[in-house]
Amino acid sequence: MEFIPKFDQQGLIPAIVQDANTRQVLMLAYMNLQSLNKTLETRQTWFWSRSRKELWHKGDTSGNTQQVVEIYFDCDSDTLLVLVDPAGPACHTGKTSCFHNLLLKQDCEPESKNEN
Amino acid sequence: MEFIPKFDQQGLIPAIVQDANTRQVLMLAYMNLQSLNKTLETRQTWFWSRSRKELWHKGDTSGNTQQVVEIYFDCDSDTLLVLVDPAGPACHTGKTSCFHNLLLKQDCEPESKNEN
Repeated sequence: MEFIPKFDQQGLIPAIVQDANTRQVLMLAYMNLQSLNKTLETRQTWFWSRSRKELWHKGDTSGNTQQVVEIYFDCDSDTLLVLVDPAGPACHTGKTSCFHNLLLKQDCEPESKNEN
Repeated sequence: MEFIPKFDQQGLIPAIVQDANTRQVLMLAYMNLQSLNKTLETRQTWFWSRSRKELWHKGDTSGNTQQVVEIYFDCDSDTLLVLVDPAGPACHTGKTSCFHNLLLKQDCEPESKNEN
């Protein structure tokens, strides 16, 4: 299947970043065509920062780059799954994953607390 | 940390769905407030179908519902990670995951082909 990425109206496509070894989901960020091409060329993750409105090489300031192992696209070509070998934590808080806040756990009432 | 979901301009928040057992990433879909509440209430995944513009109970027609095991939100509260116990394949193609198309593999040239 040929990949013709479906960018949204802002020219972006969401990219799920997953640790290739532990299978932990690390973060979700957005790529435009330029950052996707940089990712393919350099084999490290590049995104488009929606807040800073600039190209964002993950780990450029923190050193926590993400080496790309595999990239998949989904059945309607509007989302990417990027498996990486991370040099350090994905989250700016220093946690391994940005998804460290538990909202609901099976057989419990909905809650909202930090997971340690 | 209290969860105040950051919905986008369309009132949606992306939800990554991951198999709680195998850790495979299954799909990405979008929730509005109503589908998020239905998910929390029923402990099965509900989304907002952007193409059909309607509330979408995953598995309603296919039978492949997704039992919610855990839900996490990320550091800026604009993405959900939903760990599920799926009753069947997530993809409408019958594949386990919607991410079955390989775009790039480490140490290979970028390519675009179906993964078996």
